[in-house]
Amino acid sequence: MTTPPPSPLAPLSPTDRTTATRGRHRMVEDRAALHALLAEAMVAHLGLVVGEGDEAHPVVLPTAYAADPEGPDEGGTLYLHGSVAAGWLAPVLAGQVCVTITLLDGLVAARSGFHHSMNYRSAVVVGRPRLVRDEAERARALDLVVDQVVPGRSATLRPHTRKELAATAVLALPLVEASLKVRSGGPVDDEPDVAAGVWGGHVPLRLVAGDPVPDADAAGLPVPRDVAARAAALGDR
Amino acid sequence: MTTPPPSPLAPLSPTDRTTATRGRHRMVEDRAALHALLAEAMVAHLGLVVGEGDEAHPVVLPTAYAADPEGPDEGGTLYLHGSVAAGWLAPVLAGQVCVTITLLDGLVAARSGFHHSMNYRSAVVVGRPRLVRDEAERARALDLVVDQVVPGRSATLRPHTRKELAATAVLALPLVEASLKVRSGGPVDDEPDVAAGVWGGHVPLRLVAGDPVPDADAAGLPVPRDVAARAAALGDR
Repeated sequence: MTTPPPSPLAPLSPTDRTTATRGRHRMVEDRAALHALLAEAMVAHLGLVVGEGDEAHPVVLPTAYAADPEGPDEGGTLYLHGSVAAGWLAPVLAGQVCVTITLLDGLVAARSGFHHSMNYRSAVVVGRPRLVRDEAERARALDLVVDQVVPGRSATLRPHTRKELAATAVLALPLVEASLKVRSGGPVDDEPDVAAGVWGGHVPLRLVAGDPVPDADAAGLPVPRDVAARAAALGDR
Repeated sequence: MTTPPPSPLAPLSPTDRTTATRGRHRMVEDRAALHALLAEAMVAHLGLVVGEGDEAHPVVLPTAYAADPEGPDEGGTLYLHGSVAAGWLAPVLAGQVCVTITLLDGLVAARSGFHHSMNYRSAVVVGRPRLVRDEAERARALDLVVDQVVPGRSATLRPHTRKELAATAVLALPLVEASLKVRSGGPVDDEPDVAAGVWGGHVPLRLVAGDPVPDADAAGLPVPRDVAARAAALGDR
């Protein structure tokens, strides 16, 4: 395991564990691109190992997250949170985790089944998470998790209560052992299939938002500016 | 580990490994809903365990997949594929895997940070994958993986070559130890926050397609009907 320099803008330094054995040409060694993906996405897939010996098996759970390029950990910090009663908390703290964050950017319709593919950006982070104990960092991390989904929203809400904070575990994962893999553009086809005059191309995909839907208790209240801005930013363009 | 009945339409029978310890009210014991999600999504996150003892750690990789409710495995079959040279193939075949398939359906903007959430559907499948050796099943599975992305497309393409088939590993995971978790609707807020007149609601999200983009070699060729239909089905509505 190599140790990259601590600057959050240093190139990624993938280790054996985060380096793809296939498709190395799709690895992007660009910390800015990593942080751009982490800023754009909203869902992470958290992998942990449960059980021991022959019974050991992985579990992969979707979860909210927040990325803080200026966080206190080497390379910046990826924050996860969960209930202190969550069953995955103990195994996560006992070992290492892998957090993968993927955005699907398109379908690639090649001239053969073999070359069909998808366009995507995917970050893989492996490491041993730190249980955040400092109350100021915990509150800030939870605000970042809210702001990841609706930028600016945490500043408009009441502060976290002591009871809420006590019920919530916050985990920090250094963004040091991280890699980014990107595929974009059209298919890479075999020459005979191209020569045969078969169509090939791609279909761009993006996540879009509809209009905000107030719940029954919010009927008649104006949509907050942060929520409206988020929906507009993700809206049909 | 319980063994549910073999019918693909039997209710899901989550085991300890696929049962959430939190949010049990979000577990859906409905095999039809599981198959609907598996039919709609395009990306799976494959979790595997790499290394042994203290060095064991999970790796989570995004991958294409196909679900066949009528597949030969108990509960139906989830197919994965990859290069026979892929680094993850050996560890996947040596142990158990977890495949998680998630669609993000919306942002939930609550009246407190604590109750912020996301609407989603997520299937978690745990098991020991079978390396598919039968050539007919292998070819069919690879067609299903193509059709998962663009329905009907495999029938329009030339057959797989022997070289392509030899380069590709196909894995089958029984859809027997599977669970589905669904969150939908608006926030679940605390009464004092509702009484304070704060807005709460959700923002629907969906994946949409743009127009098909032909590559340079396909300029001037008509877009195939299957690709056009896929883009239209995922298009702005």
